[in-house]
Amino acid sequence: MLLVTLREDPAEAEIPSHKLLVRAGYIRRIGSGIYAYLPLMWRVLQKVSQIVREEMNATGAQECLLPQLQPSDLWRESGRWDTYTKAEGIMFALSDRQNRELGLGPTHEEVITTIAREMIRSYRQLPLHLYQIQTKFRDEIRPRFGLMRGREFIMKDGYSFHVNEDSLKKTYQDMDQAYRNMISRCGLAFRAVEADSGAIGGSGSQEFMVLADIGEDEILYTEDGNYSANVEKASSLPADPQPSPFETYEKRETPNTPTIDSLCKFLNCSPTNVLKNVLYQAVYDNGMTVLVIVSIRGDQEVNEVKLQNELVRLADQYNANALLALTVPDATTQAKWASKPLPVGYIAPDLDDDYIRPASDVAPRFVRLVDNTGVDLKNFVTGANETNYHIVGANWGEPFPLPKQVVDLRTAKAGDRAIHDPSQILHSARGIEAGHIFQLGTKYSKAMGATYTNEAGEENPLYMGCYGVGVSRLAQAAVEQSYDKDGIIWAPAIAPYHAIITVPNISDTKQMEAAETLYQQLWQAGVETLLDDRNERAGVKFKDADLIGIPYRIVTGRSLKQGKVEVAVRATHQSQELPLDQVVSTLKQWLDAALT
Amino acid sequence: MLLVTLREDPAEAEIPSHKLLVRAGYIRRIGSGIYAYLPLMWRVLQKVSQIVREEMNATGAQECLLPQLQPSDLWRESGRWDTYTKAEGIMFALSDRQNRELGLGPTHEEVITTIAREMIRSYRQLPLHLYQIQTKFRDEIRPRFGLMRGREFIMKDGYSFHVNEDSLKKTYQDMDQAYRNMISRCGLAFRAVEADSGAIGGSGSQEFMVLADIGEDEILYTEDGNYSANVEKASSLPADPQPSPFETYEKRETPNTPTIDSLCKFLNCSPTNVLKNVLYQAVYDNGMTVLVIVSIRGDQEVNEVKLQNELVRLADQYNANALLALTVPDATTQAKWASKPLPVGYIAPDLDDDYIRPASDVAPRFVRLVDNTGVDLKNFVTGANETNYHIVGANWGEPFPLPKQVVDLRTAKAGDRAIHDPSQILHSARGIEAGHIFQLGTKYSKAMGATYTNEAGEENPLYMGCYGVGVSRLAQAAVEQSYDKDGIIWAPAIAPYHAIITVPNISDTKQMEAAETLYQQLWQAGVETLLDDRNERAGVKFKDADLIGIPYRIVTGRSLKQGKVEVAVRATHQSQELPLDQVVSTLKQWLDAALT
Repeated sequence: MLLVTLREDPAEAEIPSHKLLVRAGYIRRIGSGIYAYLPLMWRVLQKVSQIVREEMNATGAQECLLPQLQPSDLWRESGRWDTYTKAEGIMFALSDRQNRELGLGPTHEEVITTIAREMIRSYRQLPLHLYQIQTKFRDEIRPRFGLMRGREFIMKDGYSFHVNEDSLKKTYQDMDQAYRNMISRCGLAFRAVEADSGAIGGSGSQEFMVLADIGEDEILYTEDGNYSANVEKASSLPADPQPSPFETYEKRETPNTPTIDSLCKFLNCSPTNVLKNVLYQAVYDNGMTVLVIVSIRGDQEVNEVKLQNELVRLADQYNANALLALTVPDATTQAKWASKPLPVGYIAPDLDDDYIRPASDVAPRFVRLVDNTGVDLKNFVTGANETNYHIVGANWGEPFPLPKQVVDLRTAKAGDRAIHDPSQILHSARGIEAGHIFQLGTKYSKAMGATYTNEAGEENPLYMGCYGVGVSRLAQAAVEQSYDKDGIIWAPAIAPYHAIITVPNISDTKQMEAAETLYQQLWQAGVETLLDDRNERAGVKFKDADLIGIPYRIVTGRSLKQGKVEVAVRATHQSQELPLDQVVSTLKQWLDAALT
Repeated sequence: MLLVTLREDPAEAEIPSHKLLVRAGYIRRIGSGIYAYLPLMWRVLQKVSQIVREEMNATGAQECLLPQLQPSDLWRESGRWDTYTKAEGIMFALSDRQNRELGLGPTHEEVITTIAREMIRSYRQLPLHLYQIQTKFRDEIRPRFGLMRGREFIMKDGYSFHVNEDSLKKTYQDMDQAYRNMISRCGLAFRAVEADSGAIGGSGSQEFMVLADIGEDEILYTEDGNYSANVEKASSLPADPQPSPFETYEKRETPNTPTIDSLCKFLNCSPTNVLKNVLYQAVYDNGMTVLVIVSIRGDQEVNEVKLQNELVRLADQYNANALLALTVPDATTQAKWASKPLPVGYIAPDLDDDYIRPASDVAPRFVRLVDNTGVDLKNFVTGANETNYHIVGANWGEPFPLPKQVVDLRTAKAGDRAIHDPSQILHSARGIEAGHIFQLGTKYSKAMGATYTNEAGEENPLYMGCYGVGVSRLAQAAVEQSYDKDGIIWAPAIAPYHAIITVPNISDTKQMEAAETLYQQLWQAGVETLLDDRNERAGVKFKDADLIGIPYRIVTGRSLKQGKVEVAVRATHQSQELPLDQVVSTLKQWLDAALT
């Protein structure tokens, strides 16, 4: 048995679960975001996988294994090759000895859709749901937190195929329940939330967030339990605006007021009286640059995920397939197309033509977007397109026509009122995304020509869903939710072993004999047990047992003379003396109770 | 259930097992050498994996999972980066977003040695044996035969660490037995053979060859069972030479005799009287080119694997780390350094200096090697370094000094006498390499500084072994050894399901009821059963059941009126009528017998 524990926290680790998994000898870093799963960890991962497998099989889904190497052709068919290898750049790409491009699979919509298009002919084969448990790859910008955001990690991903949206929704609901079951069985507190579908796409998606302070995602929820969403996706009612103190359209000198705070202080008005105009630059895969002005109420922030989705939707009208980059234009990029420095901090809802260098082949296209909060503003304050000047008392129409694209672009935040019930207030929590389920609809089947023939003999595109859960992430999240100063506290369902027998003195043959007898009996009863017969001090063994977090500990110590051993529960540190012949039945009872 | 069978053989497939696995819906090609394992195949792979796992665990080895992405730094430490990404070129290499080079693991000596060097301190932790079952990658020159030579495939690879060679040998022997057990349990006929260690290295290795006509490897063996080896490695006693008819050293005109055949016909002598001199060109990783002349008896062929090993051994004296290429020099490469055309077909055991362009910076170094069969020749015939001329009656000494490097470079072949017992003749068979076990010794631990402290407190390099078995290859090899004109014949131990219930007429409720009852009962008894209740003609269902190769078939047909069903054995096509209440016990009995 490879059992090597460290006294010191590893330098690479920032969060408790990462520190503990390295210190307790579960994982070992091989490169940035790349870990070896040592035998203890592998047992945990196998248990999490088995729970996932059981819940998937119970819904009628079937396990398979798809290739990790994926020909680029497939990704070009779906239109995602550039998005995944260039824009988001999260897919590792490589070339083989014939210089054919391959991607290392971060996800498998393209591969499964190819299989479906070749193998599914008739409605009689539907619905069909295939899943796999597999190592995935992502070239993360900033790998961190151990297994939480690695470049190589284990996922279960499943893909379902349907005759129509109703059938898809039924499986989507089954998956919702299956995901709740799996995460609960792993012993985790979580929240299911509305989510942004990102580069996967489709008509709706839901994330399963394991609650943890170090979670990279913010969740907004109401206490009535009727609303919860990832902040990337969340909508809410903003605060009501204050009445505007400006009744007349007027250009005012407002020196040194590039921020909303400084402006409101100077004009003695509320941020809700201001229309803020934010510049972005979008680059599409056909090389087209689009300059974006987002107009939004001064007290609100732009949600860049929502903005990105809107710009992806607009790709068609620019004859582009994919959005490659969305950035705030800096001095360098501005210099390429602006004829004079932009009055940043004083931008109007429309950019005068003379800011854009005419007849330049790098001149960007231009689009104006307005958030809902900007539409209803009356007599608002806004930039004058001139440094140190604002307009007050403005209204949509002249000189600022209301943009055609009115969309939800604002960031919801804690304290906002809920849309479903304005008496409910949004609260904030942090979560680790452990699962994500999507209604893909016909996005991939249409792009790749995957159809079936219905009862009437007509060919129709397949409806698809996809469903992912992070197996290695879930395992580490379990540690993040359950540890103390002494180490990890595993739930019995996913602990590498259920019990550990610590022999304080291995040269005492009575102790060794009792330990070995119990060891055999416990395994026979289905209690997976470690026997610590190392030649170490008892104190070292106790510390190690606590650190690696085995749920139940048995000590063959002094009370053996009275035919008893000490049995301790890791989570509570409570211990009791039990007669030797009651140990197995007691542990078996505890374990059965914990596993149901 | 995804059950899609094809009537036609797939165009991509050349060998029976590949055709059958595609036709029966087990695998689907996604790209060259890249396959999806569909649900039926995944069940087979899981069963093979579980057999492997059980045999490994029984030896005390522990399962883990190592990363597939491997930092190039580790491979530079062991000196294999160039060999694997350039010379053999079988490792896929890629760059991440920080332009750091990574390899996609074809094998894991570097990763495991890094872990050992960090975690193993003391002899008290040894021996230690870690293994994993994992998808591996190889950028094959010619991917083919489905899963047999794919670019992505599943392997079990294990690595053991020891205080000394004795301990290593003990585990090596345990692995020999474990590998025999695994392959036998999968129902396969095989042969364990001496093998070349190739780029893995080490002091000894053994391959496990599944016997099959389409096998890519040739095996030589004796019928007494005491010798078997891969032809790459095999040694034997060559036939005795004939006495030479030439007693005097003489240069003879031998027009149009560039081959041994034509020469012997012209001179009326035996090929065993001839010393053949073969030219090779070796390129090392430091850019050095070495011209190699191999002298060997005329009736023998050069074994290029042995030659390559010899040239790798010589790398040190050329200050090189790795041999990048070994080729027969063609006109283009010769033109770079030869001062005049080489007299190919008439080469002498030594190349005159005037063939090599002097003082050229591309002038190759020069090495002469002689095979054992060339050393004892008397009065031999050999080239005169002049087209259409040979020397007869030559002897080592003047003008041809015996090369310093006398080595075994000949290809053993069927019909040769065995070294261990010259009365035994070598026979030939073809095999599929399913497993390979290696005594690595200290090759990697020395290169990478992986040491342990012994009882005396001294630091020593770890002794290592490594052990690989091809899980997906084994699964396909099982098909190659067991099929008939109707399809696959799985051994029960690795069949995707043990039994299939075929309902000839699904609109007959009696048939369906009986089938469903049996289905429940069989699963409860541990007989994994498929229920074919598709709306298809009975003939289609029978054909599919035979094609996918489920060991036992139950048909709820006409005899149901007498309370009986037909039970057929796939391998023999023998069937019998059994009363309903005997079906489960009979199948259970057959299955138990087959699994032990």
